[in-house]
Amino acid sequence: MKRKLRMGMIGGGRNAFIGAVHRIAANIDGLIELTCGALSSNEENAKLSGKDLFLADDRIYTSYADMITKESQLPADVRMDFVSIVTPNHLHFEPAMMALAHGFHVVIDKPLSFDYEQAVALQKKVAETGLLLAVTHTYSGYPMLKQAKQMIAEGAFGKIRKIYIEYPQGWLSNFVESSGSKQAAWRTDPKRSGIAGCMGDIGTHAAHLAEYVSGLHITHLCADLQTFVEGRHLDDDGNVLLKFNNGATGVLIASQVAAGEENAIRLRVYGEKGGVDWCQVDSNTLLVKWLDKPTEIYRTGSGYVGSFAAHNTRVPAGHPEGYLEAFANIYRNFSLTLNAKRNGETPTKEMLDFPTIAEGVRGMAFIDSVVASAKSTEKWTEFKV
Amino acid sequence: MKRKLRMGMIGGGRNAFIGAVHRIAANIDGLIELTCGALSSNEENAKLSGKDLFLADDRIYTSYADMITKESQLPADVRMDFVSIVTPNHLHFEPAMMALAHGFHVVIDKPLSFDYEQAVALQKKVAETGLLLAVTHTYSGYPMLKQAKQMIAEGAFGKIRKIYIEYPQGWLSNFVESSGSKQAAWRTDPKRSGIAGCMGDIGTHAAHLAEYVSGLHITHLCADLQTFVEGRHLDDDGNVLLKFNNGATGVLIASQVAAGEENAIRLRVYGEKGGVDWCQVDSNTLLVKWLDKPTEIYRTGSGYVGSFAAHNTRVPAGHPEGYLEAFANIYRNFSLTLNAKRNGETPTKEMLDFPTIAEGVRGMAFIDSVVASAKSTEKWTEFKV
Amino acid sequence: MKRKLRMGMIGGGRNAFIGAVHRIAANIDGLIELTCGALSSNEENAKLSGKDLFLADDRIYTSYADMITKESQLPADVRMDFVSIVTPNHLHFEPAMMALAHGFHVVIDKPLSFDYEQAVALQKKVAETGLLLAVTHTYSGYPMLKQAKQMIAEGAFGKIRKIYIEYPQGWLSNFVESSGSKQAAWRTDPKRSGIAGCMGDIGTHAAHLAEYVSGLHITHLCADLQTFVEGRHLDDDGNVLLKFNNGATGVLIASQVAAGEENAIRLRVYGEKGGVDWCQVDSNTLLVKWLDKPTEIYRTGSGYVGSFAAHNTRVPAGHPEGYLEAFANIYRNFSLTLNAKRNGETPTKEMLDFPTIAEGVRGMAFIDSVVASAKSTEKWTEFKV
Amino acid sequence: MKRKLRMGMIGGGRNAFIGAVHRIAANIDGLIELTCGALSSNEENAKLSGKDLFLADDRIYTSYADMITKESQLPADVRMDFVSIVTPNHLHFEPAMMALAHGFHVVIDKPLSFDYEQAVALQKKVAETGLLLAVTHTYSGYPMLKQAKQMIAEGAFGKIRKIYIEYPQGWLSNFVESSGSKQAAWRTDPKRSGIAGCMGDIGTHAAHLAEYVSGLHITHLCADLQTFVEGRHLDDDGNVLLKFNNGATGVLIASQVAAGEENAIRLRVYGEKGGVDWCQVDSNTLLVKWLDKPTEIYRTGSGYVGSFAAHNTRVPAGHPEGYLEAFANIYRNFSLTLNAKRNGETPTKEMLDFPTIAEGVRGMAFIDSVVASAKSTEKWTEFKV
Repeated sequence: MKRKLRMGMIGGGRNAFIGAVHRIAANIDGLIELTCGALSSNEENAKLSGKDLFLADDRIYTSYADMITKESQLPADVRMDFVSIVTPNHLHFEPAMMALAHGFHVVIDKPLSFDYEQAVALQKKVAETGLLLAVTHTYSGYPMLKQAKQMIAEGAFGKIRKIYIEYPQGWLSNFVESSGSKQAAWRTDPKRSGIAGCMGDIGTHAAHLAEYVSGLHITHLCADLQTFVEGRHLDDDGNVLLKFNNGATGVLIASQVAAGEENAIRLRVYGEKGGVDWCQVDSNTLLVKWLDKPTEIYRTGSGYVGSFAAHNTRVPAGHPEGYLEAFANIYRNFSLTLNAKRNGETPTKEMLDFPTIAEGVRGMAFIDSVVASAKSTEKWTEFKV
Repeated sequence: MKRKLRMGMIGGGRNAFIGAVHRIAANIDGLIELTCGALSSNEENAKLSGKDLFLADDRIYTSYADMITKESQLPADVRMDFVSIVTPNHLHFEPAMMALAHGFHVVIDKPLSFDYEQAVALQKKVAETGLLLAVTHTYSGYPMLKQAKQMIAEGAFGKIRKIYIEYPQGWLSNFVESSGSKQAAWRTDPKRSGIAGCMGDIGTHAAHLAEYVSGLHITHLCADLQTFVEGRHLDDDGNVLLKFNNGATGVLIASQVAAGEENAIRLRVYGEKGGVDWCQVDSNTLLVKWLDKPTEIYRTGSGYVGSFAAHNTRVPAGHPEGYLEAFANIYRNFSLTLNAKRNGETPTKEMLDFPTIAEGVRGMAFIDSVVASAKSTEKWTEFKV
Repeated sequence: MKRKLRMGMIGGGRNAFIGAVHRIAANIDGLIELTCGALSSNEENAKLSGKDLFLADDRIYTSYADMITKESQLPADVRMDFVSIVTPNHLHFEPAMMALAHGFHVVIDKPLSFDYEQAVALQKKVAETGLLLAVTHTYSGYPMLKQAKQMIAEGAFGKIRKIYIEYPQGWLSNFVESSGSKQAAWRTDPKRSGIAGCMGDIGTHAAHLAEYVSGLHITHLCADLQTFVEGRHLDDDGNVLLKFNNGATGVLIASQVAAGEENAIRLRVYGEKGGVDWCQVDSNTLLVKWLDKPTEIYRTGSGYVGSFAAHNTRVPAGHPEGYLEAFANIYRNFSLTLNAKRNGETPTKEMLDFPTIAEGVRGMAFIDSVVASAKSTEKWTEFKV
Repeated sequence: MKRKLRMGMIGGGRNAFIGAVHRIAANIDGLIELTCGALSSNEENAKLSGKDLFLADDRIYTSYADMITKESQLPADVRMDFVSIVTPNHLHFEPAMMALAHGFHVVIDKPLSFDYEQAVALQKKVAETGLLLAVTHTYSGYPMLKQAKQMIAEGAFGKIRKIYIEYPQGWLSNFVESSGSKQAAWRTDPKRSGIAGCMGDIGTHAAHLAEYVSGLHITHLCADLQTFVEGRHLDDDGNVLLKFNNGATGVLIASQVAAGEENAIRLRVYGEKGGVDWCQVDSNTLLVKWLDKPTEIYRTGSGYVGSFAAHNTRVPAGHPEGYLEAFANIYRNFSLTLNAKRNGETPTKEMLDFPTIAEGVRGMAFIDSVVASAKSTEKWTEFKV
């Protein structure tokens, strides 16, 4: 029987950013209910946050370990179905491993883990348990990027030659980690963020999107990483040349010191006959360019889009969906897949289209490769997984 | 004590469009749970639709009268708090009146009712009962339009002179009501839609938005309504000249035969010193124009926006929110106001900022005035409420 | 034998705006040389302006009458071929009549004349003499509007239903005619401008463009004209409902008090199957919209455009042409037509595509009709020519 | 005494592309007349082309050497003032050297020469003769880029950190040099184009623009050049990492196989407090971005722009100028400077703002450096001049 899935959240208490986003994403489609949470490592914050979210008192936990243990002892028709891990990077691995060990599926914010070794360990655990693990590479949830992926896969543009992915932000242009920005503080702290700053936070999104839409893999890269803001401990900017496994080349730009930019991720892919151009600021539009015909404006919700874009859209063309819906598409497809499996059904390929452990592992490999390249005087560094 | 509010939905069963939108809007912020429903006048559809939405069997009703009666007999901590009415226009009035009579608050899709007389009766009932009634004029939920309204109210542009509101759609360019489009069928049927087609469906949105953002009232109008598609029974297009109560003039364009347009509502307001320009296709941008300075691009989620825009935004600048979030802002403010009142608190002015019965009544008066003007050979027809 | 045509300019001395534009337009394609001028009614200004432009001393005149008389006495291979009249409206008629009477072709800025009677007299004179007269309705010179016209004429969109033409400017938002703006002063002076202000200056452009691109004629209109700025003597704003001779309806907006707008003329035309959308701010783009297919972005200079757009373009796609080139297209086509006739050749239909006396007369009729409508309490006023 | 300057053109006969552009650019402002030409190395084409342009028979030459020799023997008030060289790259050097040697100023299309050695020789000759030499790096002629340069120079954005310059085209996506495209044929031929294809043709524009606007110099680069189209002899694509002399870093993208792109050059520069964003497709707009304020839309022709943008604009805001006017700005400033010098006046800094031999030499050095880097396995190659 299909039913709402029960989610337990780890992290995401008062004043957290991404936890609130995950909850909205889980709410939108009415497929998931937030059942319990270990919302903060601070006991009082955990409790207050749980009350804010109308959790039952006995489902508000003050540690993830407590939550996983106790939930696993509840009856099957009461206990949570999966955990959503929305803590900083260094606090992904242990709860994810423990949740899997106790039979809970996992949704986890990106990047997957603190380092590559943890990623490999998680991958092994997922394989052992057969449980689902989704990584929230949000941007791949946009319907127009799914349209682009489908058109490329179907050969509309011939062989792909060029991929430009850029992700400029400006919010770290000053030394804000010293002045109370909680979001900035952990992202620029090597003990919580890992070996990369900008490249871990947004470079991984960019690399994932380039590979997701093109269907290609990065094989080599050449990185110039910078720390422009004095006092900062990790990179806040990077320019990277890319080589792909089919001979295509490309550029990845990620910056958190592009002063005045918001969150302007944009992807362009060109093949022999044409290409696609998408930017988040106009997320319901996909420009489809052709060598010898007018550019076409593909739009979310239109009758002519393919099965993947259609499946990931809620309202007709002209009613803009955005970031929260893109994020929700990951939760929705994860839920549809999980509900299908619970009922012994085969999920459709559209349902299965969400980022999993494999993409999470590649993200961690990207971080390792790009940091290694930045330190090298050689032009090309191999992207190893 | 604050808690999730319990919603009962009337209409919105399988294959309905706007009912699904209402549910998403109610879901997003985790402030409301769908508790019960009379989702269709067809008994089987009502039941299947209820199961689709994971409603408890005993909260799936097969008529709104049954739902209102039975819910009113449930204990206070179990029964629904409010109804959401998402049926075609001719089925708004009776359930709304009955819900109010039984002490339930109401959210109701626009236009408020089938005719102006019903609207006045509803207004009287709301006044008698002291209950809340919200009308879902969605577009006023967009944060950048709230920003525009606040800047205009604060006098940023001096006295307002010009208002251009346009709402072109193309989906009724052919005689689709004859070929199975359920959405087209009732909207073009005088028995279900009322005396206006295009003007009732989208003209009322346009008129509301012009008045909401400018803070002005339409006093006179001059309408040219057309039915371009042969066989159609109601207007599918209209051009209207407007006069406002401060001497400003304007134009309202609404069309459902602008072939190739999606849902392209756009508002421009100009005062003595500058003006604003907003269109739904780029809904997170407000162009703020000045006589002698560069145009400024105001963006949802930015630090510099006013209290109303900030209150109605969930994520930082650069993470696009859209139609569903604008819709959700009405449900959110309705819920915050209701929860505040339940707890004996005074709602903030930002919470109270959602369309109520007064706006609903003006919408019905607009329909009457615009249809009267279209039939008149006089240039100006008074807008009477 | 083809040769550069010799132009004599009337008006356009130092500090004039439109005279300089006419000279650039005449220069661009190397088909015309400025040979002589009566550039100002002020003798000293006329002489200094002539020297600025490197005119020979004996071709600098201090009155148009002097120029026309003396040039007509020069040998055929020396004297000017045509005059370009760039004076304020009240100074169009006499020089145009005199030039025609002396056998000179005429280019004349819009609106054609001070009043409708002059227009009719000019039309008679042109017919009598068989000379060419071009009116510089600039916007019809844009290649992408020619593309729109050609697609509409070829039936690409089926029968036309809706025409929206808008032309908002903001430069007259204040009482600038009192503070030294020469451009504002004559345009707002009934003795120099005629019976209309905004409607004569830019409304005529808008009306012409709507008719030019659609191939239709306005038959009735309903106007609301305003003078928003205190002390001003003519309209500075207007909203007009339109009916066309095929049953299409439309709206014409023209304002010079839309504070913050530059010169934002935009045209949209919709037929049964799709439509076109063009705005001067992005003048090399024509959005071609379709009921059930993606919108296409037609671009100046592309290989797929029709013969009219191609003929009026100088550089490949991606090298933006603008206002001056659109203006130049009128001079170019006028010159090509004139040179063809001089050589006994038949001009192509593309060469003949420039606004002539007929369009000039319709412009003056528009002014009469729109002012009459504004004074009427009847909804519809006939557009009479 | 100021007078029209007399231009002799080398190259640019029938069917040439860039020669026609140079002529329009020289025509627009009425400061230059085309007096003579050696328009083709083919004698008949030279003669027919000269007649097309209405040149006097005795000023139509069939070789540049003939033209330079004979013109130098004409009286001072008859002979040409300067030559404009619009031939393929391998035919720049000799005529430029000869013109300088005979006392003629020079305008020359980019890149300056066939190789770096020629560039240095030309630089020496210019220094010896004291004559003017302008290189037509067109894009620096756009007023909004001059505005950007001025704001950066005045410190509006603090220290510059990031420069992204991109120049995607698609017209060489197929092997068109084999099928009759004259433009493609010489650009992809090492004997006529030099050691670089795409990088010489458009990469030099991009590098120049980045340096011009930022006021910085590239010191190191890391290039990945590709030849995607089989059979082609030179690069048709490249991605390049950049380092600048103040510590800023950047990316240069140039491609002629970005299928579906026209000529989409775009520049973004970011400093500590904000930045600028300009693209040719919307060339009259400069987006000025700020860390904590709304983005501002600067527009050509507005009252608030600086002296350089104002000087290079012909019409008020809202009357779009484009590529031909940007090109014309180089000819105009060259002419104003030359006329000032002829009259013993000091040219203003705005007049002197056109690309000269120094920029031409840096362009050739860029080609050498980028090709060297592409061949190297080292990450960074020094940019040497």
